[in-house]
Amino acid sequence: MKPLILITNDDGVDARGIHALSEVALEFGEVIVMAPSHNASGKSLSLTTDRPLRVREVRQADGLAVYACDGTPVDCVKLALEHFCPRRPDLVLSGINHGSNSSINILYSGTMGAVLEATTLGFPAIGFSLLHHSPNADFEPSRPIVRHLVGHVLDHGLPPDVSLNVNIPRLGTDDIKGIRLCRQSKAKWLDSFEKRIDPLGRPYWWLTGKFVCQNPPDNSDEWALAHGYVSVVPVHTDYTDQAAIEQLQTIEQY
Amino acid sequence: MKPLILITNDDGVDARGIHALSEVALEFGEVIVMAPSHNASGKSLSLTTDRPLRVREVRQADGLAVYACDGTPVDCVKLALEHFCPRRPDLVLSGINHGSNSSINILYSGTMGAVLEATTLGFPAIGFSLLHHSPNADFEPSRPIVRHLVGHVLDHGLPPDVSLNVNIPRLGTDDIKGIRLCRQSKAKWLDSFEKRIDPLGRPYWWLTGKFVCQNPPDNSDEWALAHGYVSVVPVHTDYTDQAAIEQLQTIEQY
Repeated sequence: MKPLILITNDDGVDARGIHALSEVALEFGEVIVMAPSHNASGKSLSLTTDRPLRVREVRQADGLAVYACDGTPVDCVKLALEHFCPRRPDLVLSGINHGSNSSINILYSGTMGAVLEATTLGFPAIGFSLLHHSPNADFEPSRPIVRHLVGHVLDHGLPPDVSLNVNIPRLGTDDIKGIRLCRQSKAKWLDSFEKRIDPLGRPYWWLTGKFVCQNPPDNSDEWALAHGYVSVVPVHTDYTDQAAIEQLQTIEQY
Repeated sequence: MKPLILITNDDGVDARGIHALSEVALEFGEVIVMAPSHNASGKSLSLTTDRPLRVREVRQADGLAVYACDGTPVDCVKLALEHFCPRRPDLVLSGINHGSNSSINILYSGTMGAVLEATTLGFPAIGFSLLHHSPNADFEPSRPIVRHLVGHVLDHGLPPDVSLNVNIPRLGTDDIKGIRLCRQSKAKWLDSFEKRIDPLGRPYWWLTGKFVCQNPPDNSDEWALAHGYVSVVPVHTDYTDQAAIEQLQTIEQY
């Protein structure tokens, strides 16, 4: 039986990135897309708790079923796995995101939220992001990268409870230097909110922000991307800091 | 100068849990509360990108300033740190959440989303949760636990880039056996969506779900909580799986 691949994203079901991803996935097997009907960027792993979800069938033909859901990327993964997949998928994919999810951007990303959700449920999963925010971003150079990684994971699997955060530099096919396994870079977002005053004199604040990552080490995703490589960070959903458990022992003296 | 403590939550500025947390924090220093004006449970680290934020001053007296914001818990932390704190806070607190954030619940939690955000920005931070969902939950037995941990962290700090996920069992003061440093338990949420049919015959899906955590090891948070202990999991924001980097080397052959 052909592999079954479940796909979602956070840019919405109509985004160019998810079309490119679906087309490459179809080369490997059957594809089910369950994606937000709207833009759900920056939704992290959020869940919809205050209202029920609706699903609209967008397309059903030639091995590709596409559904739009009015929930978050995590909602999409849970709902598709339980109610829309005819059998257990072999792989869960998310993206291709319009914009970077490298470094700590993984914390906020709806694209990677969906991937982490799939990981908790025991599925191999890959999130793809292109370092280009435009709705009209060119995903042609991303296709061979996606093809290689999807093929590799379908053939070899992933270690248990591990998924991949893949970021692709904004370069032409010939300028991409290769693929690097990396660590997540340490960084922070500063100057996050811009204050403005409305016509009635009342303040309001817009999210903005400056990404600050100083001297990323050469085994990190920011270094790889800055040097023309695709970064692949294997990630997990256990946030425990084991070293701190040793260091904090006196906290138990209560 | 007295310590400055920034507090947020995800249950909203009016929740009993954040009142209890603010009262204990006031024993240690000045307190600024910037919390969602509404319930923001399950918002993870989501950001508000599609509209600007508004802030309402709720109270300003006796070392306690309280603001309500129409954004997410992460928005609250960013906005408060940049525009509302008179100086750099010594500590960021979140909670006390009405309900558990142990195990993989940390992935979805707005309470812990705020804590992880503060961690990326270099602040020591603690998230508190009580294993009791009711809006009328009794936070009295939580107070001495919060007092001990806040005092400990103000006195001794935390390792760099580490914050604490604290869960408190639903027990009376005398029945709480102590505090245990733990690892995050592995678990999954199953049966997440219940399908219903509306009066016009159309389907809709409500989030529900069954938390499944089998045989948690005795160094894990689920074990500690089930045995009457407060669980303290030191967490970080680097999701890299280092072991997988070694195991996946062939993926670079592109």
